[in-house]
Amino acid sequence: MDKETHSFEAIINNNLSGRDLDEFNRIYYGRTNHLEVPIKESSIAVAKDNNFDIAAYAFPAKKESTRPPRIVKVGIIQHSIVVPTDRPINEQKNAILTKVKKIIDVAGQEGVNILCLQEFWNMPYVFCTREKHPWCEFAESAENGPTTRFLRELAVKYSMVIVSMILERDENHGGVLWDTAVIISDTGNIIGKHRKNHIPRVGDFNESNYYMEGNTGHSVFATRYGKIAVNICFGRHHVLNWMMFGQNGAEIVFNPSATIAAEGGSEWMWNVEARNAAITNCYFTAPINRVGYEEFPNEFTSADGKPAHKSMGLFYGSSYFCGPDGVRCPGLSRTKDGLLIAVMDLNMNRQVRDRRCYYMTQRLDMYAESLRKVLDLEFKPQVVYENEK
Amino acid sequence: MDKETHSFEAIINNNLSGRDLDEFNRIYYGRTNHLEVPIKESSIAVAKDNNFDIAAYAFPAKKESTRPPRIVKVGIIQHSIVVPTDRPINEQKNAILTKVKKIIDVAGQEGVNILCLQEFWNMPYVFCTREKHPWCEFAESAENGPTTRFLRELAVKYSMVIVSMILERDENHGGVLWDTAVIISDTGNIIGKHRKNHIPRVGDFNESNYYMEGNTGHSVFATRYGKIAVNICFGRHHVLNWMMFGQNGAEIVFNPSATIAAEGGSEWMWNVEARNAAITNCYFTAPINRVGYEEFPNEFTSADGKPAHKSMGLFYGSSYFCGPDGVRCPGLSRTKDGLLIAVMDLNMNRQVRDRRCYYMTQRLDMYAESLRKVLDLEFKPQVVYENEK
Repeated sequence: MDKETHSFEAIINNNLSGRDLDEFNRIYYGRTNHLEVPIKESSIAVAKDNNFDIAAYAFPAKKESTRPPRIVKVGIIQHSIVVPTDRPINEQKNAILTKVKKIIDVAGQEGVNILCLQEFWNMPYVFCTREKHPWCEFAESAENGPTTRFLRELAVKYSMVIVSMILERDENHGGVLWDTAVIISDTGNIIGKHRKNHIPRVGDFNESNYYMEGNTGHSVFATRYGKIAVNICFGRHHVLNWMMFGQNGAEIVFNPSATIAAEGGSEWMWNVEARNAAITNCYFTAPINRVGYEEFPNEFTSADGKPAHKSMGLFYGSSYFCGPDGVRCPGLSRTKDGLLIAVMDLNMNRQVRDRRCYYMTQRLDMYAESLRKVLDLEFKPQVVYENEK
Repeated sequence: MDKETHSFEAIINNNLSGRDLDEFNRIYYGRTNHLEVPIKESSIAVAKDNNFDIAAYAFPAKKESTRPPRIVKVGIIQHSIVVPTDRPINEQKNAILTKVKKIIDVAGQEGVNILCLQEFWNMPYVFCTREKHPWCEFAESAENGPTTRFLRELAVKYSMVIVSMILERDENHGGVLWDTAVIISDTGNIIGKHRKNHIPRVGDFNESNYYMEGNTGHSVFATRYGKIAVNICFGRHHVLNWMMFGQNGAEIVFNPSATIAAEGGSEWMWNVEARNAAITNCYFTAPINRVGYEEFPNEFTSADGKPAHKSMGLFYGSSYFCGPDGVRCPGLSRTKDGLLIAVMDLNMNRQVRDRRCYYMTQRLDMYAESLRKVLDLEFKPQVVYENEK
């Protein structure tokens, strides 16, 4: 491939216009008008100087007479690593922190209330290598690590809730590692943390060599701006993970991810899974993916019969927001750093639930019983054979 | 709107070409080449004479050394009603049977092994009216009704399993109605039936005034050609309905539907939900929607503040197939009758499961327990508050 496609949106906007574009937007995104929200000139200038994209879209709700609107400004950031992976660990990490701080500053200037970073935002996606040294050195304490300390300051400065996705080292339990979301309050306190529930075992995603399935259930975090939860990366494929966040009252569920375009990748599923979760659970979702190529010092194989190599291929970005009605906004690019902002009225969640009745018609009692049966070692699937008659 | 858009595919193919088209197809459908399968000249001629579309696509699997390929030809039909809804019930029904027989004959000529018809294929979607008379007269016995008898003959003639979606009258239980899939074997026997598990209560979809939630569990039907199941219409929004068919061993799950493009409709969700189900459950899915406008004798309202009217708006067709890897084929049109065929190797299901490990990583034990807790009237959602600290 000569050059990476900039974005799905670029393909559409460069080729479609008039009624064809309107119909495409209606059928694909769910609305003909993306409801773009203006960005400050100063933010656009900083974004240009620092080579990241910035865009904002509105997700309004109907006016109610018994509740005021609950407008929240939510931001997500996608970005590449900065220095080569053979540099010292702290140099790699600090270079990312320094770069991303500029994007967070712009989010602050734009009045973002809740900000979520990508999975393992402060490091390369090292798990493809299966090497423990030196990569485990990226692990930090969720409560007191340098990355958390760095973000607490920014959270207070901008009165912003920040979700930070790190490789956690749990010193209180033998120093084991976890894939962890740290929820930092706008007060600078840690509200809590959530550990990834479903760990991949496929291709270059060798995370099961580093940490186990999470033990923090399906926590929803009550922030000043709304109830949020984090379905981490591979949990995207697990509909019950999404569902339990909804049952626990989440209004916005982030899906910080690291996923690639290469063969066996996930690009055609990216528009499907977080969006289906928004629809069936009637809440906002925000899938976030890193961008760029990451080359490692030593070669590794991808269990696909192909020769060893030093890079997994393109992390394709394309982060976006989806409303509880399944309507989504355009995504960020496939190749560039970016800040995407949604101005959402959280009242929409209940409005969609009242209209569509997906929760009311769930029949959870039937399924709790069905799953119990499936778990039985003597489980007999409900199969009807013709010759039984 | 001047004229209905023919199809999502027409928008793309009329405007994109070269590398842009390839990249669109890769990112949207999951492959740059749709793997079109040739159709017989005679079938194309019949389709043209009878004003329906016909297309076929392949979904191949890797070669295995311990199992032969399991190639199955699967067909789905979408169609409009034929005569006005003020004609006598049997005249309306027979006109549809006569029209659809021509499409089934072509499916037979093409060697289709398993055929699924749309929801309530032998009648208009009458539930928008909320009128019981005369519409309940469309109901039939699943085992011995005229529609089942009509299809049993065609099933034997073409050695074809046929899934027939009817309004069932259950004479053995007070003559109540159900929304039912009748699974007719290639031998002409009835393998069994499945009743819709989740009933809508929204807009014009007033089905809950006519019948209750199904009582047939999540039956999978072992046909000569493979194990099939039917997630009927509104069940599309319920991820646990899809999941239980997978747990019971379904290889192909049909989703016969009746859904509209109008405001509050579902068109932007159509590509998302059945496709997400294919991905997370690693099986083939086939959503089917009726086409056209249906005008009723008496006006009705749609609970959306708008004036009374006699039609729900466009049923937008767009039926398609999706593989267990999430790769889908182009859909049928939004406006015309059509027969869509997939030549699928069912070996792909296990191959995708072995690769992606979505079943292995499901943690069903955790969720069976979580759902049990949710059902408790004293359930306390898992919410973390900052001021608890």
